[in-house]
Order: sequence, then C-alpha cells, then structure tokens
Amino acid sequence: MGLRTAEEYKNGLRDGREVWIEGEKVEDITSHPKMKVGVETSAIDYEMAENPKFRDLAVAIHPETGEPISRHYYISQNAEDLIKRHDLIVEATRQGDGIIPFTKDVAGDSLNAVLITCRSMGNEVYIDRINRFYNHVRNNDLSVACAMTDVKGDRSLHPSSPDQEHPDYYVHVVDKNDKGIIVRGAKGHITCAAYCDEILVLPCRAMREEDTDYALSFAIPVNTKGLRQIVRPYRYHQGPLEFPNDRPIRSQTESWIIFHDVFVPWERVFLCGEWQYAGAMAYNFSYSHRHTASCYRLAMTEVQLGLAIAIAEYNGIDKISHIREKITDMIIYIEMLNSLSRASCLEPIIREGVALPNYIISNLAKYHFAKNYHEFVKNVEDLCGGIFITTPTYKDYQVPELKEDIDKYLSGIKGTSALDRLKIIQGLKTTINADDEVLALHAEGSLQAERMTIYGEYQKRLQELKRNAEKIVGID
Amino acid sequence: MGLRTAEEYKNGLRDGREVWIEGEKVEDITSHPKMKVGVETSAIDYEMAENPKFRDLAVAIHPETGEPISRHYYISQNAEDLIKRHDLIVEATRQGDGIIPFTKDVAGDSLNAVLITCRSMGNEVYIDRINRFYNHVRNNDLSVACAMTDVKGDRSLHPSSPDQEHPDYYVHVVDKNDKGIIVRGAKGHITCAAYCDEILVLPCRAMREEDTDYALSFAIPVNTKGLRQIVRPYRYHQGPLEFPNDRPIRSQTESWIIFHDVFVPWERVFLCGEWQYAGAMAYNFSYSHRHTASCYRLAMTEVQLGLAIAIAEYNGIDKISHIREKITDMIIYIEMLNSLSRASCLEPIIREGVALPNYIISNLAKYHFAKNYHEFVKNVEDLCGGIFITTPTYKDYQVPELKEDIDKYLSGIKGTSALDRLKIIQGLKTTINADDEVLALHAEGSLQAERMTIYGEYQKRLQELKRNAEKIVGID
Amino acid sequence: MGLRTAEEYKNGLRDGREVWIEGEKVEDITSHPKMKVGVETSAIDYEMAENPKFRDLAVAIHPETGEPISRHYYISQNAEDLIKRHDLIVEATRQGDGIIPFTKDVAGDSLNAVLITCRSMGNEVYIDRINRFYNHVRNNDLSVACAMTDVKGDRSLHPSSPDQEHPDYYVHVVDKNDKGIIVRGAKGHITCAAYCDEILVLPCRAMREEDTDYALSFAIPVNTKGLRQIVRPYRYHQGPLEFPNDRPIRSQTESWIIFHDVFVPWERVFLCGEWQYAGAMAYNFSYSHRHTASCYRLAMTEVQLGLAIAIAEYNGIDKISHIREKITDMIIYIEMLNSLSRASCLEPIIREGVALPNYIISNLAKYHFAKNYHEFVKNVEDLCGGIFITTPTYKDYQVPELKEDIDKYLSGIKGTSALDRLKIIQGLKTTINADDEVLALHAEGSLQAERMTIYGEYQKRLQELKRNAEKIVGID
Amino acid sequence: MGLRTAEEYKNGLRDGREVWIEGEKVEDITSHPKMKVGVETSAIDYEMAENPKFRDLAVAIHPETGEPISRHYYISQNAEDLIKRHDLIVEATRQGDGIIPFTKDVAGDSLNAVLITCRSMGNEVYIDRINRFYNHVRNNDLSVACAMTDVKGDRSLHPSSPDQEHPDYYVHVVDKNDKGIIVRGAKGHITCAAYCDEILVLPCRAMREEDTDYALSFAIPVNTKGLRQIVRPYRYHQGPLEFPNDRPIRSQTESWIIFHDVFVPWERVFLCGEWQYAGAMAYNFSYSHRHTASCYRLAMTEVQLGLAIAIAEYNGIDKISHIREKITDMIIYIEMLNSLSRASCLEPIIREGVALPNYIISNLAKYHFAKNYHEFVKNVEDLCGGIFITTPTYKDYQVPELKEDIDKYLSGIKGTSALDRLKIIQGLKTTINADDEVLALHAEGSLQAERMTIYGEYQKRLQELKRNAEKIVGID
Repeated sequence: MGLRTAEEYKNGLRDGREVWIEGEKVEDITSHPKMKVGVETSAIDYEMAENPKFRDLAVAIHPETGEPISRHYYISQNAEDLIKRHDLIVEATRQGDGIIPFTKDVAGDSLNAVLITCRSMGNEVYIDRINRFYNHVRNNDLSVACAMTDVKGDRSLHPSSPDQEHPDYYVHVVDKNDKGIIVRGAKGHITCAAYCDEILVLPCRAMREEDTDYALSFAIPVNTKGLRQIVRPYRYHQGPLEFPNDRPIRSQTESWIIFHDVFVPWERVFLCGEWQYAGAMAYNFSYSHRHTASCYRLAMTEVQLGLAIAIAEYNGIDKISHIREKITDMIIYIEMLNSLSRASCLEPIIREGVALPNYIISNLAKYHFAKNYHEFVKNVEDLCGGIFITTPTYKDYQVPELKEDIDKYLSGIKGTSALDRLKIIQGLKTTINADDEVLALHAEGSLQAERMTIYGEYQKRLQELKRNAEKIVGID
Repeated sequence: MGLRTAEEYKNGLRDGREVWIEGEKVEDITSHPKMKVGVETSAIDYEMAENPKFRDLAVAIHPETGEPISRHYYISQNAEDLIKRHDLIVEATRQGDGIIPFTKDVAGDSLNAVLITCRSMGNEVYIDRINRFYNHVRNNDLSVACAMTDVKGDRSLHPSSPDQEHPDYYVHVVDKNDKGIIVRGAKGHITCAAYCDEILVLPCRAMREEDTDYALSFAIPVNTKGLRQIVRPYRYHQGPLEFPNDRPIRSQTESWIIFHDVFVPWERVFLCGEWQYAGAMAYNFSYSHRHTASCYRLAMTEVQLGLAIAIAEYNGIDKISHIREKITDMIIYIEMLNSLSRASCLEPIIREGVALPNYIISNLAKYHFAKNYHEFVKNVEDLCGGIFITTPTYKDYQVPELKEDIDKYLSGIKGTSALDRLKIIQGLKTTINADDEVLALHAEGSLQAERMTIYGEYQKRLQELKRNAEKIVGID
Repeated sequence: MGLRTAEEYKNGLRDGREVWIEGEKVEDITSHPKMKVGVETSAIDYEMAENPKFRDLAVAIHPETGEPISRHYYISQNAEDLIKRHDLIVEATRQGDGIIPFTKDVAGDSLNAVLITCRSMGNEVYIDRINRFYNHVRNNDLSVACAMTDVKGDRSLHPSSPDQEHPDYYVHVVDKNDKGIIVRGAKGHITCAAYCDEILVLPCRAMREEDTDYALSFAIPVNTKGLRQIVRPYRYHQGPLEFPNDRPIRSQTESWIIFHDVFVPWERVFLCGEWQYAGAMAYNFSYSHRHTASCYRLAMTEVQLGLAIAIAEYNGIDKISHIREKITDMIIYIEMLNSLSRASCLEPIIREGVALPNYIISNLAKYHFAKNYHEFVKNVEDLCGGIFITTPTYKDYQVPELKEDIDKYLSGIKGTSALDRLKIIQGLKTTINADDEVLALHAEGSLQAERMTIYGEYQKRLQELKRNAEKIVGID
Repeated sequence: MGLRTAEEYKNGLRDGREVWIEGEKVEDITSHPKMKVGVETSAIDYEMAENPKFRDLAVAIHPETGEPISRHYYISQNAEDLIKRHDLIVEATRQGDGIIPFTKDVAGDSLNAVLITCRSMGNEVYIDRINRFYNHVRNNDLSVACAMTDVKGDRSLHPSSPDQEHPDYYVHVVDKNDKGIIVRGAKGHITCAAYCDEILVLPCRAMREEDTDYALSFAIPVNTKGLRQIVRPYRYHQGPLEFPNDRPIRSQTESWIIFHDVFVPWERVFLCGEWQYAGAMAYNFSYSHRHTASCYRLAMTEVQLGLAIAIAEYNGIDKISHIREKITDMIIYIEMLNSLSRASCLEPIIREGVALPNYIISNLAKYHFAKNYHEFVKNVEDLCGGIFITTPTYKDYQVPELKEDIDKYLSGIKGTSALDRLKIIQGLKTTINADDEVLALHAEGSLQAERMTIYGEYQKRLQELKRNAEKIVGID
C-alpha cells in the first residue's frame, strides 16, 4: 500500500487484459512497440512522485491516515489545493514535452464526480461504495480511466429510442442478480484505457425515465472478462524518416471499449437506474475535467509557441512587424488560457465537501482554448513557412551528397545550422496536426457543450441584470 | 480633515476655476445645467462612504493614523486589498447606472504611479514631496484628475522635434526660479477635470534626452491662475424628446486643459527633467488604470446586457436558437472580463511597496474588453431590432391620438406595454453609441498600447519557451 | 407624363398627407425644417436625370413607348442592365455624400417583387393590376415607399395567433366590398415614406392558412384617408454646435405607418388571401433589395474610409505599421463589398422576365457588409483617436480666446489646421453612430435572414457535394 | 506536334532526370511507387483533352495556326476566356478528387508573367526568346514547373547581403560566356517539378542594384546536367491501415531544386541583370497564380464540405441548430470564394495583350480562402466528432471478431453502416491535415503578400476617397 513506483505501475498492467491494436492482439502492453510509449508517458505521474524536485507538487497527505498519497487522489478543499493541482498537471505535461500523463488526472476528476453525485443523492449505499472504491484507488495508487462517451448511434435520438438501429449504442444493464449486474454496450475515445488498472464508467448525458437501464455508473478492473479494447495510437513518431532524438517519445492511445455482457459486482455499482442523476454525474465530471484540459493545453501550447519562436528567429523574420503582431496574438492566447485556468482555481465552488474550479471560469478557459486553437495553429504555421510541408527527411540527410546540399541551402540566419532548423520543423510537425485540432474541439466536451454550460449557469444572473436594467430606465 | 460629505466636495468646487462649455464660461460648476450632472456622478464616491451599506467597501483605515480614509487612497498591499478595490469600483459604477464616479479612482492610480516611480528613482526629495501630496489628498479627501495625454501635434514626431509646428504640443517647462517652474502646453481628453480639486500631471510617453523639458510631473489646484479648461459633455440626455425618468442622470465631461504659463511651486513638482523616467511613470499609471477600466466596463456592460435581455424578452425572441447563441456570446464576453479583471487582483505584483494588479492579466482584461466591445454592441443591437433607430419620441407620445397608436402597436409580447418597451430602447440609446465605442478603444490606452505592454512583459518568458522547445527537439 | 423635375416631385408632396414629427403635425413636408432634408436628399434621383453628366446612368428607354423613363423603373433584362443599376445607386449615393436618395430604388425593388410573384402565381387579374400600377409609376415618374415590416407584437407568434395581445400587429383585411378592401394595422421602419407619392405594401413573412387575412399586398397614395405617419429624423446635424458647411445636409426619415381602417380599391390590390405566396413575395423583394443595400453601403463606407484616411494623415499616424494594417483591413472590407455587389449583377438570375442579382451572391454581399461593419467602424474609430469624443464645438471656436487655444493646440502635422481637423472629425461624427450600425444589421434583412436565404438556396448543391464525396471514398 | 496523350506525357518523363525521394534516387519517375501518383495526377490535364466531355474546356485553338492546343497555353483576351480557364481548373481539380493536376496551370501563369514583363521592358531580344519558348511548350504540349521561391537563408537580408552565411541562397549567375550562363543556388517548394518537362525559373522578389546577379529568369529541361531534385511526397495514403478504395489516389510532390552550376543557353534566358524588373516579374506571376489558387481551392473545399455533410448526416446531427449554423458558415465560405474567384475573371485587366484576373479581386479571393481556411477546417472537424482521431483501422476491421464489434457499434443513424462511416472519416483524414493548412497559408503567396498587394494597388483610390471626404466636410 502507498505510493507505487513507475515500475510497480507497469508490472500491474501485465494482467491478461484484451487489447487490440492495428488488428493485432497485444500480449504485453508494457513492451509492445506500439503500446509502450503510452505506458511510459503515463508513468511520468509515478516518476514525479519519486522525484524530490516534484514531490511537493505530486504528493499529498491522506487526511485520515496521514500517509503520502498522490495529489490527484487528495480531495481539494480550497483555492490553494486547486492551484497545486493546476500546477501539478501543468508541470507533469511539461515533463511529457506537451503530453499529459493523464491516467491519474482523469481518475481524480471522475472519482470526484461520482462522489459528489452520490452525496447529493443522499444515497448512503452508493456513498459507502464510492468511498471504498476511492480508498482502494488512493491506497493502492492505482490508475483509472474514465469511460464516459457512448458510441451513440443516431445522436438525435435518446439511448432507449426504438428508432435506434439497436438498443446497445449506450452502455446499459441487460441483467441483474444478487451478486451484481450484467452490462452491454460500447464506449469510445477512452484515453489511456489500455494501460490503466481500473475503468470507471459514467453516463455521458442526461436521461429520461425510459432510459432507466442506461443510467449507469460502475468500476471494474481492465482485465475483467468480456471487456475488449480496440486501440488507436496517437502521434507515434520517430520512424526512419524522422531525425533521431534521444528524448523519449510521448504519446497516448485512444480506446474503443466493448462490454460483451460484462459482470459487475454490486459493490462496484454507483448508479443503476436513477436516471434523474445521470446528467448531473456527467456535469460533475465535466466541471473538473474541463479544468484539467485547460492545464495540460497550457503546457502543450507553450511547447508550440517555443517551437514557433525558434523557427521565426532561425528564419530571420521575428522582428518584422506583422510577425511581431502574430507573436503577440499567440502570447495573448496562451496567457488568457493561463489566467483563466488559474482564476477558476482561485475562485472555487465547494460542492458536497469537494472544492471544484469555478464552473463558469473553467468553462471559459476550456472554451477560449478550443475556440481559438485553430487561429493559434494558423499563426504557428505562418511563422514556420512552407518548409513545414516540404522538409527533407532524415533518409535524405543520410545520403552524403544530399546532406551537403541540405546543410548548405536549408540553413537560416548566420549561425543556424540546417540540421537545427529541420529538427525544429520536425518538432512542429509532431505537435501541429489535425488530430490535435480535433482533440481541442472535442476532448473534455465540445464548444457547444461549454457554451451550454455557461449559458445554463448564468440564467439567474441574467434575470438579475434584466431586472436592474428595468429599474434604471424607470420600469417598476 | 477626514472623509468629506458629498456636499463638502461640491462646495470645494466653487473656487473661481476657469471652465468653458459650448462657448460659455461656467460661473458655478455645481449648478450649471450642463456641468452639474458630472459633479453629481462624481459625488457618488463621497455618498457611498456615508452609506452604511457600502462603508466597508468605500472606507479603509489610514495605516499610520488609524483614521478612516477613502479606500481609493489606501495603498493596496496584497490580493485582498486589490479585490476590495475591484469590488468598490464595480459597485460605484453600478450605483452610477453604468457610469464610474471616476475622480477618486483615477486619483489613486496616478498617485501610486508617481509614488512608485519616485521610489524606484530613489530620489528622496521627490519621494518626500509625493508622500506629502498623497497625504494632503488622503487627509482632506480630495478629488484629483490625472492629466496625461498631451495634444501631441504630429504623432510621428517626438515632443521636442523641430518638425513640429510649434514646441508646445507637449506640456513642458518654459522657465524655472527658486520658487518653482512655469509650464506651458495642453492636455486633452481629461475626464472629470472640471470638477476635481487637483490636477496631477504625468508625462504620456517615453522621452529622449532632447525631450528633457517635457519630462514633467506636478500637481496643482484646478483654480490655479492660467489653467483653462474647454469641456465637452458626454452623454447628456433627458431633453424634451426623451421619456421622463426619476432616476438621476449620470455622465461625465471631458476637458481640454490649457496651461497658459502656469506657475507650479517646487513642492508640487515630482519629475522635472529626468527623461529616463518619463516612460516608466506613464507605464506605472497604465498598469493600475487599465485595471480600473476593466472594473467599470464590467458594470457598464452588465447594464447593456440587462437592457438587451429585457428587449429580447419583450420582443418575444429570447428563445430563438440564434438569439440564444448571441446571448451566450454576450455572457462569455462579460464573464471573461469579470474573470480576468478579478484574476489580475488575485495574482498581484508588488512594486515599491504597492500591490498592483498583475500587469499581463490586467492588460489582457482591458484588451479583451476593448477588442471585442464592438462585437458585444453588435449583439445588443441585433437583439433590439430596427426600432432602436425609429423609436417615437416622448413628444409624439404626449399627443393623445398618437399615444393611442403607439400604445396599441408598439407593445411586445402579451403583458408588455409599449411604454416599457420604449423606455428600454431609450435606455439602450443612452448607453450604446459611438462615443462609448471610441472610449472603449482609446480610454486608458489603445488596443496597440495593451498589445505592446503584453509583448514587452513577455520577452523573458518567450526566450525560456524557445530554449525549452530546442531541448525537446534535441538542440543543445 | 415622362420624367419629372425635382421641383415637380416636391410639388407633388404638398397633398394633405398626415405626417407627424416629434409630436408636431407637419403642414408642408417640403418646407418643414425637420422634414425638408429628407425631401431634398430624395430629390437627388430626380436631379440626376436632369443632369447631362448622369443622364446615361439615370435614364433608360421605355421598351414599349421608347420614351425616357427612370432607370429604376426599367426592368433589367441582363447583367449589363443590372450593372448599370448598380452604378446608378452607387453614384446617386455618392451625390448624397453617402446617403442614398432611396425612394426610386426601393420602388423598383418592390414593384419587381410584386410583378414576379403575380406572374409566378399565373393570376392574370393581379398581373394586369400590377402592370398598370407599374406603368402609372413609370409614366408619371413617381416615388414609392415599400411598407413591408409589420410591427409584429410577439415575434415568436404568427400574425393570427390568439396569443397575440390583439389581432392588428400585422396589416390585414378587416372588410371587403365590391369596390375594394378595408385594411388595419401598422408597418414600421419605412424609410422615406413621408415624402413619397405612393405606398406599396408587402407582407413581411411566410404565412399559414390561418393567416389568410394577413396575406396582403396593395398600393395607395400617401395622402389616403386614414393613413397616418409618425416620423423620426435620422442624422440631422448642423445645429449651433456644429462647424458650418455649405454642403447640403443629407438624411432620411423613418416612418411608422398606421392604417386606420384604410380603404383600398380593388385595382390596387395585388395579393389578398393567397397565403402560399406571402413568403415568396417577401423573398422576391429581398433578393433585389439586398443588392440595393450593398450598392449604397459601398458609397457610404467609401466616405467613411476617406474621412478616416484624412484624419490618420492629419494625425501623422498613417505610416505606422499597425495603422497601415488597419487601413488594409478597411480596403479589404470595401473591395470585398464592391466585388460581391458587382458580381451579383454579372451572374444574374432571370425570374419571370426580370433579371435579378444572383441570390446567393447578393446575400453574401449584404451579409459581408453587415457582419463586418462594426469591425470596420472600429478601425475608423481607432484611426480617429479620442478626439472623436472630446472635440470642441463651433460655439467654443467662436470665442476668440478659445479659438486661439484651439487653433494652436488642436492642429495636427505641420500644415494641417485645427479647423480642418475638427471638420473631418465632425464629418466622422455624422457618419459613425449607433443608428447606422443598427441599420447595417437590420435594414434590408437581418444577418440571420441572409444566412437562412443562403442556406436555403444551397440545399440542392449540398446534396450533390455529399453524393460526390461518397463516390470519392468508395460509397456507392 | 500538337496535343499529347497522357501516355506520351509519361514517356517524356523517362529522360535521366536526377530525382531523390526519402534518400533514394529514383530510376523511373512514372513507375516508382512513391512518385507515380503525382505523375498520374498531373496526367489528368492530358486525359481531359482526350475526353470529349471536357474537350471544349481543355482545348483551345492556336490563334495563329488554328491547331488545337491546351487551353492553358492559350493567352486569354477577355473575361470569357478567363472564365473558361477558371472552369477548366475547377473541373480538373474535381477530376482529381480535390487535387489540381497543376503542371499546365502553373505553366500558363509563369509563361504569361515572363511574357508580360518582357513586353513591358520593351526588350525585343527577350520578347523573341519567350515567344519562342512559349511556342515550344504550346506546340509540343509540354508541362512546365515554375521555380520561384529561393531558399533565402536569412529572410531579413537581401540576396547579395554580405551578412548572409553564403552568397548562394538565391539562384544567381556565377559565370557567363557567349553560349550562355552558369547558375548556382536552390529553389524550394516547387510543386510537380519532378514530373514536368521544363523548369521555368523566376525571381521571387524585388531586387536592388547590388542584387544584379540575382535578377534572373530562364528555362531548362528537367534532365539538364547539374539539376538535382530532393522530393517530398504530399498526402500518400492507402497503406495497409487504410480501407481499400478503387478510386485512384491523387497527390503531388514538392521539390527542392539545387542548381549545381547549371549551364543555360542564351536563348533560354529571359531576365539577366535587369534588377528593376525582378519584382514586376514576380508580381506578374502572382496576379495570375493567385487566381489559379482560388480555383482549385474551390474544388478542394467542396470535397471537404461534401464529406462533412455526409458524416453529419450519418451521425444524425445535421438538423441541430448550431450544426446548421456551422454548415451555413461553410457554405458562405465556399460561395464567397467561388464568387470572388469568378468575379476576378469577369472584371479582367488587360496587360500587354494578356487578360489577367482583376488584381484586387483575385487577391481578395485568395486572401479570403487562406485567412478563413482554418475556421472552415474547424467546422469540418466539429461536424466529424472525436472519431476523426480514434477511428479503427482496416487491419482491425479484417479481424472477424473485431469486425463484428465495429459493424455493430460504429454505425450511425439507421441504415448507415459502420463501414461507410469509416470510409467517410478516412476521406476526411486524407484531406484535413496540417500540410494543407500550411499550403493554404503559404502556397501562391502568404496572407501578408496578398495584403500588401491589395494595399499597394489601392493607393490612388485611397487618395481620391480622402480628397472627396475633405470636400464633403468643407475643406478646399
């Protein structure tokens, strides 16, 4: 019990789980060439806890036992706690060269969401179960993926709609007995799920009474029978065309998780039929998780800005007035994100004993990031120039006669080698891509989801402002 | 000594000052129909200190004497102090139905700017003078206008450039003797200057060595000989065409201040020739004053949003999807301003013993406000509809046969009278206008000024990010 | 018969019409100080026909009689005709210093809309009536206002909805006899209606069967009994605070038109109960009228750009890089409008023998103008600077001692007098205002109206593109 | 002589040219698996001339000989010719499923640029040479790459600046003799250069007198000794992870062309030292080539919109109001591009006997496309959803047990198979990527290049508008 080392985390993943990648069944997640990068990226969170430099950020004290635990599993009480969590995620993402380790971040967000929802229901059975599961995770320093997004089928229809092609687009209960429940369905876009210890399932939307069987939250180990993952790598690089780099590669994978009539024991069930709370649980997750997003996006865009500044300087364009204005726009973008993300911590909302980032501000932060990310990318690409597309490969560079040409002709301002310039461009190509754009839009909630949250949370204030305006113009 | 009543403030303004409005020399500022609205709007700050409801916000304790003083003249020490100041400005502007009282706000900003600059110079003579002047203001509860923007002539030239049509576009020293200095020139766009007790003059830009005579800061009473003001009213309404409203009218005036070889005694001189510090003094003012801007703009735009929501509801369009999206955009605009403005307080910078709102965040707040204000206004106008332009006047409404038509035809959704609708539109016409748009762009620093501040303050961080990016791609 | 002189046009307006302005009943439209500016602005269209310089633009040949007629009443047959009409509106608006004469422009748009709709109905009675009315207008060179926008009440309800406060928010038939019909209701925002010869009424939206009584189009002389107008001036200047200018003032008025059980003879009724065609008639008007908008907006924004360039040069800022970029943005805005407006003519659509500007392109032109106008205004205001708000008045300037100060201190770059600078600013204040912003958004159809038209017109193409995309990826 | 078949074009490419790709020297361009896709895509232009369906578009008549020639080599005389060229490029790109064949398009643009520049110089020797080269291309139906962008080194320095690391960043003359010249340097981002018959070299910027050796234009066959190309594929797909598709793959390659002291005979030299004309030649190319861009971008974005609509429908979200608004934005984007691109043809400028698309309008079209492309892409990505990133691969789909899961869970609305959905997403992934975004920004001139052209071309008009504004406000 207590904090695990990165090695212990990895050992725990060799447990017979069913994971497929590119049509191949993976024997050992931690050594498979297409899977281990994700494992190692997630391990950063474990490594930071071992590293004295980051220990204060990464480790907190269990409020009851006084033992050291991961800060991600410490329930924030106030602004200071939230700022520490903010700083931890930012720093961990910096350690990941712009990629968040993620497994513990999302774990904390989803555990808190379930805890808050159960407490607000006042259902003592559920409260007891989630408390025990929370302690299981906390005391054994586990990693947990949050499986939220259902595959949905026709998005204009409700889960139980008879117009759906079949009833299984949303994960639901198909049977119950005295030991537990049997669930069927599939969840998609589940980051890191292939190398977590547990899967925590949440509903992804508000439900109606007819959706009772779909109002469901539970947790199971990843190697549970009947649980299959089809995985897609995200951002794998360093093939023979890429310039070599000693730095470890960072990336994650995304899973489709199919539940083939999976058995879940009752002690792991946190919502089962209380359809009125499905939406709340999803919202409670999003409040916190959108703040997680704004933290790691900050560290990610800082890497992109750094690369963009480097290439602009190498190209000799950084002092041109329109370029300086574009750099200023990029700074404004990043510092707006930074300020809003931190501000959401500094003005917390306490819900059922859990300090959450201010809902409106954390949604503003995520919305600002996502809405303007393409414009930020446009500026990065503008500074880089056409060579982003046309850059010679490392294979070209290994041919001596081509190397000579490349060294001579692709250098930038005096003193900047072609090789350095090509490395920066390779770095840009790694981090600027359509997948990251889509992530910006859809991960942790779409633009429209953030807008709806902000609009919804503001209704009372809106009527106050209306009433005040009427007073000002003399309407009683 | 100590806090003054609003009445005492007004009495202090009857002092023989030279103020002109629309070609007329004003005898008594406090009773002149075109001037008194500004006086009364400024008096709100005095009234709030007398009002038990606002006393905690409006009044602070003199750190040395323990006496009650205006919070505006209490030097903030930390985030909490700044947040109180933020809340005070927001609340005072709400009391002004969207118009800031202003005279004490700008007073605090400019006094702090001079104090910080003198301290950073380490010039004990200046430090002593500004301390004494600060205490004079604080202990007598005075109002102070900050005269910063010179008339400039050719903006592409420096103050002392021989290519300027004449040497007096920037206020400068034309003579000195053992008692003091003689100054000449003109300052423009000086809000509230006609009804303040003192004028505090600051340089408006960085200077070069040849501009020595223009590097100048001093304070004088408004009725000083040779000081002339030409004033323009801003937002005067309630003529015979407007619908009557018992609510007091709120507005300010803008002054051109001409210094006709005005004598300033040495004890009132805070910068005189130290051209290296001219730019710093201007910047030190802007750091704080841009935050002032973001506070009162918040209260102003809240009024506008309230009016817009009212008219949308009266028109029966508030549930239409594209209107709801526009309302969401307006909420996002306002809450972004609110969050950034508060965040700049929550993460202060301490300069020479003075807590200032975080430079970058306060510039982001002001920039966000100003850059997007026209878009916000566009949404307000969109919700209002064409009747904004075509609204019948109160004179029409007083003709019985027209009143009957208007009452019948200009009502909105069931239960909304035409009169209420016209009053809301009149409220909108008061607050939505080109003057306020220009104020948004130019008051407290232009868009470009904010961009340059942000870019400048970020240079060190930019190089860190660049260096880190190089490390990530393997460049030593 | 044939073309009238401006004098003849004015004489025709002294006919006993009932027009109210600011609570006063107007005896003679053409001499009333608050009304005559509009009359004179509208008269430009008549003056141009008399002016050899513009005759080719302003005058066309009656296709049947060979007589000279106003080009506005010539039914365009092809791209060339439409370009001539485009050029005529642009030129007339330039003659109006940025204000369109309007009465004939909107006349042509609405006459064509009725004509096309009647022809597409195939209703010979209506076709005959509108042809005769069209000839009446054409042969007597009349001016015609188009009364389209109803006052609407609750905008979320249909005209005949029982939830409306009363049934008269939309103009409708209350009685019929063998001579004609009796109509009741009110129309709003009717530009120029006070100084036109005729009012042509159109429905403003699609109707349902229960709205039969509201599906209505007809024309009547302005002095018809029971027709009352409440008028609001738009942009009246040149009071004692303004600097004198020999140039005639240009402006229009907006009318509320109330129909107090007005009798309309059958020969003037063009739609009466055919609810299926109400929407089409409104659309047919908008297709053409949005193009009219893009024409006069071009000439209007050109004036604004010219003023902005002048003040930027006087201020000495026109070569600063960020200002040059803003000027470039303004040029792009204007030339985009110009190109799209002309392009809509060059690619016409022929409907029922009438050449109309391409629907999609003309909506793009209007939408581009309206969507981005606030940003354009922002740039104008940015170039002008704070003096836009604080500019001294002509009354100040007439006081010799103030004149001396103003002349000295408010001059710009060498050789630019303060007086010229103040005149330019006065020009800017005349043309930059919230009323014009609202006009940009709502006149000739709102942003959303344009979006819906574009979306609707594109449906077939959208499915073609979808089908093609499927083919490309191998879906049969 | 005369039109060639696609096969003849391909045969002509087997000529010993030196082309490298991914470190490998290519033996036969037309059969190499990484090169032939580009060859086949370019061949579309030849195929269309053979296809009766497109013959009228693709083939024109030689004005002197009366023989059929490629329309790309027919010198446009008027709007009608330009519109035909517009339609040809759009259609050819549609044949390329969104990829332009390019080799003849850019050939025409660059040949015209040289012709116009030589004619405007009045240099009969050059005129004769370019005429003969033009006829050589036209009569033998050759393909020509335009090599314009130099590798530049430090972009803030001129070609001949001694502060450059070496003098060869811009292609220049290093020796001359009576037979011809020897050139050295490198050009980058040269689309299709690996599979053209000829390379036409143009200067990429304005030059100063000291840059005389760099003011250079010439043409040589691609297999000329000393000419080396390093090539990068662009958009190669259909590996084992992709779902199979019978449709041919379309793509191009980009080349770095290194001139290792290449000999150019005098009859192929069109500019050599006349530095005053270097900028003009670059501009003359851009006027026409930016129009080419707007044509093929139209066909490309139509494919993207089609895919986006398909996936939105499959997902069941196409009727949701915020999605409909996004679709409307996409339509507006595309139709704005279409209208402006066509409008630039409809209002041509005749230069030295060559009809060019209107400069300002063609720059507006390209600028509109490039400035807003990222926003368009954002909307495409928004409609697609997170599955863009997480889509299973074809390898997954070939495993029967996974196929079953995928077929069941990744289907969309009733009747839409998972396979079709995955194919559409694969199509989206092919066309939405960072490379295309960079192309949007930098190909055919950067955003700033377009802005500078528009600003420059508008200077005269700007002063007219200023003068007119002064008149309006009464300044003589």
